[in-house]
Amino acid sequence: MKFIHTADWHLGKLVHGIYMTEDQRFILNQFVSLVEEEKPDAVVIAGDLYDRSVPPTEAVELLDEVLFKINVELNIPVVAISGNHDSAERLSFGSSWYRNSQFYLAGKLSKELLPVSIKGVNFYLVPYAEPGIVRQLFDDDTIHTHQDAMKTIIDQIEKNINSHEPNVFVGHAFVLGGATSDSERTLSVGGSGCVSVDLFEPFSYTALGHLHSPDAIKHQSVKYSGSLMKYSFSEAKQKKSVSIIEIDEKGQFDIRYRSLSPRNDMRELEGTLEQLLDPGVYQHEKVDDYLKVTLLDEGALLDPIGKLRQVYPNVLHLERKIHLTDQKKKHQLEIIKEHKKSELELFEKFYKDITTLEFTEDKRKVISEVIGKVLKEEVAK
Amino acid sequence: MKFIHTADWHLGKLVHGIYMTEDQRFILNQFVSLVEEEKPDAVVIAGDLYDRSVPPTEAVELLDEVLFKINVELNIPVVAISGNHDSAERLSFGSSWYRNSQFYLAGKLSKELLPVSIKGVNFYLVPYAEPGIVRQLFDDDTIHTHQDAMKTIIDQIEKNINSHEPNVFVGHAFVLGGATSDSERTLSVGGSGCVSVDLFEPFSYTALGHLHSPDAIKHQSVKYSGSLMKYSFSEAKQKKSVSIIEIDEKGQFDIRYRSLSPRNDMRELEGTLEQLLDPGVYQHEKVDDYLKVTLLDEGALLDPIGKLRQVYPNVLHLERKIHLTDQKKKHQLEIIKEHKKSELELFEKFYKDITTLEFTEDKRKVISEVIGKVLKEEVAK
Repeated sequence: MKFIHTADWHLGKLVHGIYMTEDQRFILNQFVSLVEEEKPDAVVIAGDLYDRSVPPTEAVELLDEVLFKINVELNIPVVAISGNHDSAERLSFGSSWYRNSQFYLAGKLSKELLPVSIKGVNFYLVPYAEPGIVRQLFDDDTIHTHQDAMKTIIDQIEKNINSHEPNVFVGHAFVLGGATSDSERTLSVGGSGCVSVDLFEPFSYTALGHLHSPDAIKHQSVKYSGSLMKYSFSEAKQKKSVSIIEIDEKGQFDIRYRSLSPRNDMRELEGTLEQLLDPGVYQHEKVDDYLKVTLLDEGALLDPIGKLRQVYPNVLHLERKIHLTDQKKKHQLEIIKEHKKSELELFEKFYKDITTLEFTEDKRKVISEVIGKVLKEEVAK
Repeated sequence: MKFIHTADWHLGKLVHGIYMTEDQRFILNQFVSLVEEEKPDAVVIAGDLYDRSVPPTEAVELLDEVLFKINVELNIPVVAISGNHDSAERLSFGSSWYRNSQFYLAGKLSKELLPVSIKGVNFYLVPYAEPGIVRQLFDDDTIHTHQDAMKTIIDQIEKNINSHEPNVFVGHAFVLGGATSDSERTLSVGGSGCVSVDLFEPFSYTALGHLHSPDAIKHQSVKYSGSLMKYSFSEAKQKKSVSIIEIDEKGQFDIRYRSLSPRNDMRELEGTLEQLLDPGVYQHEKVDDYLKVTLLDEGALLDPIGKLRQVYPNVLHLERKIHLTDQKKKHQLEIIKEHKKSELELFEKFYKDITTLEFTEDKRKVISEVIGKVLKEEVAK
């Protein structure tokens, strides 16, 4: 039995004020082609279909369109849950009808937790739920953390699980631990929102959503698929993919990753303005990408964002790099006391504090002239 | 062929700051029982399922529940369109799946306008659309008013209509005209938002939503079902019902009305505070009803709303009745000039201006004492 594991579509997301809907449509068309090619027995979407509880109407239309193609036109079962970004209630609307065509959508957590069976594989659908919701649902006052809540849910599942069959957990949570990371340490760093990986031991495969990279956890059977696209510059270096799982009747599985190519990538660029505007530098680059630019120039620049956008239309963020050593930070505090120094001396100190460069004789001459001119005008008033 | 015509459910509505969801659940349970009893071949809902484009989640859950009971549990086809209060795009989500179980939901207007056929009757689903949307859809710059838009839509329908079969138009619009009303007059009063009734001539029956009373139009075949419940005190005297239509293969039909009983009625009460708080008066009344109370008392009352709510918990609006004749309004202006009169004379004038009662010697004595006391305290300060 073969299924595709994906998550964190975040339809309707704004990135630095730009709606990603057209980029999402592009990547989802690619995803649909991939599904058509792979012909899986199911597509699993582990939460955060939308980016917010009331998504823009374009996102609603896009999700409807994509799911219809996969589920009705390609006739492939779909298993989906809501994530913390979705509204459980709004996403649930109509889900009773969808089951007719094997589109299993769990918006709200239910107490029964019975699996959906597709070609001999049992899928346990566990939508994201705050501990308070789980406490109320199971009428258990001892549930306070996400760890407590998930344990209760999995205990409930274990009451009826058939461990001789392949069982897949579909969830949306912040899971920590695993073979290569020090779980004690990460658990204490991660805080109360996280769940430890060993809870998922009863399952042959755990299909997670929430963290946007498959590298977020290293574990034999508990996996994040990652998002379809990069959604922040902190993800700029991640590779995005979907996971293809082939699982046998004993729950043994193989996993493959297929990457997707975004319409515009999300990248970081660094250099001086002159370098970045040099055709020799950018002619081989995809200038349409969403960029975070870090300028290395020193001194004032006239309208750098305007100039950059003539070459790179989608600069989303511009920074300038200033190195501050600890030693310099200390000096900055001292500057407050420097009331009796001349303007030139003050400037020299300021220049040394915020740059790593030398205050050369040339520079001193330029600034000295400027100061002289300004002071003369002051006196003339 | 028998169908039920209803409209304007307005789920999620707030009336005077109170969510009507529980009242709506009550009336919809009654509606479901009625459907169960009547066993129609279809239920038609002519728009405004929700009260707003993003309804509260309770309303979303209620609609899901009710439609599931009717369509899936009772296995009765449902024909529904969006109204001006609904979001066409949000309501559309999932509609492709619903068709499998004969739940035909038209959220967005489509250019094709092909009918849905149920037991030999053709239903033309025309969701509410602004003229601008219709102008764009049909690429016709001459469309400016609702009348233009509806004419274009109906012309389009007429291209393929089979007039030998029963044809039902399902729409959400402000339709004016009809046998007993002076259409010229009402059209000019109604403004540009309205559509004239004769456009619907090609249809055996026109099932409308938008106006909340079946009496909003008097026409042989163009009908409003009215809302299920009263949604403002201006509807306090309306009777609410759903329409049961039995239509034959020639398009001839019989119509019956079945009324619904709300959990709490919406009524207007008038009287003095003393009368309204008299157990002899209210003991035979449903004191839980949503009330607009008009108090006829003269003079000051201490916390009338608090006292009323001890008997009538759901007083939503309180008014006091003051009769001002034109003559008195004129006098009110004159009072501004009355600077030199005594306090007692000023009060007497004020009293006569805002009441229809005589300023008797008894009243003069009381107010004179009050004024004397106040003035004495002023001097003492």
